[in-house]
Amino acid sequence: MTTPLRLGIAGLGTVGVGVVKIIRQKANLLAQRTGRPVVITAVSARSKDKDRGVNLEQYAWETDPVALAQRDDVDVFVELMGGDNGPAKASIEAAIAAGKDVVTANKALLAHHGQAIAAAAEEKSCVVRYEAAVAGGIPVIKALTEGLAGNDITRVMGVMNGTCNYILTRMQDAGLPYDAVFAEADALGYLEADPNLDVGGIDAGHKLALLASIAFGTQVSFDKMELEGIQRISIEDIKLAADMGFKIKLLGVAQLTGRGLEQRMTPCLVPEESPLGQLKGGTNMVVIEGDAVEQVVLRGPGAGEGPTASAVVGDICDVARGFRYPTFGIPANELAVPTPATSNSPAPYYLRMDILDRPGALAKIASALGECGVSIDRVRQRQHEGSDRAPVLIVTHKTQGSAVHDAIALMRQTNVLESEPVALRIETV
Amino acid sequence: MTTPLRLGIAGLGTVGVGVVKIIRQKANLLAQRTGRPVVITAVSARSKDKDRGVNLEQYAWETDPVALAQRDDVDVFVELMGGDNGPAKASIEAAIAAGKDVVTANKALLAHHGQAIAAAAEEKSCVVRYEAAVAGGIPVIKALTEGLAGNDITRVMGVMNGTCNYILTRMQDAGLPYDAVFAEADALGYLEADPNLDVGGIDAGHKLALLASIAFGTQVSFDKMELEGIQRISIEDIKLAADMGFKIKLLGVAQLTGRGLEQRMTPCLVPEESPLGQLKGGTNMVVIEGDAVEQVVLRGPGAGEGPTASAVVGDICDVARGFRYPTFGIPANELAVPTPATSNSPAPYYLRMDILDRPGALAKIASALGECGVSIDRVRQRQHEGSDRAPVLIVTHKTQGSAVHDAIALMRQTNVLESEPVALRIETV
Repeated sequence: MTTPLRLGIAGLGTVGVGVVKIIRQKANLLAQRTGRPVVITAVSARSKDKDRGVNLEQYAWETDPVALAQRDDVDVFVELMGGDNGPAKASIEAAIAAGKDVVTANKALLAHHGQAIAAAAEEKSCVVRYEAAVAGGIPVIKALTEGLAGNDITRVMGVMNGTCNYILTRMQDAGLPYDAVFAEADALGYLEADPNLDVGGIDAGHKLALLASIAFGTQVSFDKMELEGIQRISIEDIKLAADMGFKIKLLGVAQLTGRGLEQRMTPCLVPEESPLGQLKGGTNMVVIEGDAVEQVVLRGPGAGEGPTASAVVGDICDVARGFRYPTFGIPANELAVPTPATSNSPAPYYLRMDILDRPGALAKIASALGECGVSIDRVRQRQHEGSDRAPVLIVTHKTQGSAVHDAIALMRQTNVLESEPVALRIETV
Repeated sequence: MTTPLRLGIAGLGTVGVGVVKIIRQKANLLAQRTGRPVVITAVSARSKDKDRGVNLEQYAWETDPVALAQRDDVDVFVELMGGDNGPAKASIEAAIAAGKDVVTANKALLAHHGQAIAAAAEEKSCVVRYEAAVAGGIPVIKALTEGLAGNDITRVMGVMNGTCNYILTRMQDAGLPYDAVFAEADALGYLEADPNLDVGGIDAGHKLALLASIAFGTQVSFDKMELEGIQRISIEDIKLAADMGFKIKLLGVAQLTGRGLEQRMTPCLVPEESPLGQLKGGTNMVVIEGDAVEQVVLRGPGAGEGPTASAVVGDICDVARGFRYPTFGIPANELAVPTPATSNSPAPYYLRMDILDRPGALAKIASALGECGVSIDRVRQRQHEGSDRAPVLIVTHKTQGSAVHDAIALMRQTNVLESEPVALRIETV
């Protein structure tokens, strides 16, 4: 095959420009590796005149990404605009309708519309590839879909939002409160336009939903995920966890059990000396467990121009080599509709709350736990500092998450809570 | 494509039986994932009657693997016999001559004859896949060849021999000498028939040579590798390293510099809290650095029935899906002949030796180092325990390996050495 593979790139932000640079600068290497020239024929972005540090004059310009997606001289539509709707969705749909292959970094779009896109792509014999959508430069989708294809995957876990990990690491290292570090991250441009996508766990949840679909052969089911962000994690939580030898991470876990598909993206305590506990800043880590391979752990940069562009170009090279398979690894109409299950495997829990500093208050908390069958491993009630609030830390023995939530519901009825309890699962993976 | 992919499996040891089990037990899953049935038509091994815990009656039996490789009802020849010559080589050559694709776990064969095999395979439009040859269940060849195809790879590193890592870890944990742990490993069946393949660093060297070829687009060059095994590592070295916060690992490093291709597989000191330092037992770790992706780290089981079979089946699935590319990522005749270069980037070195307990002995050692421009960071001369030998530990400042070797050559001429010095590079990756 020496016919060139012709790309149309929509979206010329950091990642788009990174992709353009690689395709230009490594033309010979890519041709050698894929067996054919890989060229850009057309590009699209909101503003034509912006200086992006790369000469785009040789490429046709389209203001409308849908028009770009439909061009006769485009074989692969590379969507790097982002957004779970709007131009990204319209142009990917147009590309598929026109029989083009698609490479995208768009986790939100696939988490919400993955099933429809996969079905449409198969109808037109197109491929949709999205390595860059999950864990940046780490080739994790490839590992799961291809390298580990001989496995029944038993569990997928990961820390997959660099911004959250940056905030949590920075809070710990600098002893700063959440709000201060959030403001820092914002100033550094680390946050999405809607910061809740990051700190609310939604972005990481989108990624986990895509991995779960591939791992278990189920339709993407983001809406049914147990989802909690890091906004309620205080510097106090981080310090208390550190005192006990733990770090707090926004951790995703997906597994298929007899009860159904468990998916959660929640802040957890992990041992500080574990690989997950040692993860700093924007680095991502994905743990894949399969019945044959046991456990494979992949670590790398979760974002940034180079790493994300690396993943996009990896996908483009696969298309150039003629690698073709269904969007989520098996045909769209064979993906099972998963039964959502609450993650209920027993684990110790960390609980922190403020209670009224009055006789019997702690007893009420303790009996709420007891009534729900949650037994206490450690309690610490600290000094009051002149207020009428008493901060309490409780570590439970292994228990089910549902029992902890039941106990918290009971606590709320006692009128001794001065704040909503923080309950975090302790994962000793 | 619904034509079945028909496998002929030669070699029914642990891995071969593992592959047979997966192909049988997961027939539906593999068909769903690859889009076509994957079936075994014939097998071959030395003894037909041995009970392997799996029913082989439904498959044709060939005593001669060459005959198996040539069967008309075999599309893919799966070579799991091992050995860098003999039946493995003959049957792979026969398979390629007959136009069959090949999947193998044979690192030794490819390290020695990779170039010829790659050229022959391309001549006949066959593919040769060998994910299981490097780092067991970790899909590292796939990551390097495909996922990171948009990168100029700058360095590849790894701990890739589980037996060596088991021996070093066990020496440290149990405080046992090398010989005792070697005997244990032998009794547990962890060693190759020729143990020097493991403890001499040869097996790990084969793996590094294959990764270097893919990473840098060069012909496999195992013979030019700087190679040192773990046989001279004493429990004393392990304890001294631990006192300074280091662990000893058999570490491979390959990089292409202006001076040529550097490849070394040698015991090194690594910080105990680093990911490499934390690696225990048979677990492997490979670190890949590229200009776009920065750094990706892959960790997983380096051997064993399940993990190795997982890698073999991953390759089989790729062939079933029609993924085809040259053996080392680019066409065999485009692979450059590498100029071997001695790894000479500066690093601190750990030196241990016994010297004669006489006045001026240490001064002679120190001046040998000084003459070669090696400056000393720390020296420790320990108690003599009633002998006339004085054990000496020296940690140097950053220096080139060649200067350390020159200094050791000078030391040998002083007649104060009571034993050959142990010199280990300290890697602070």
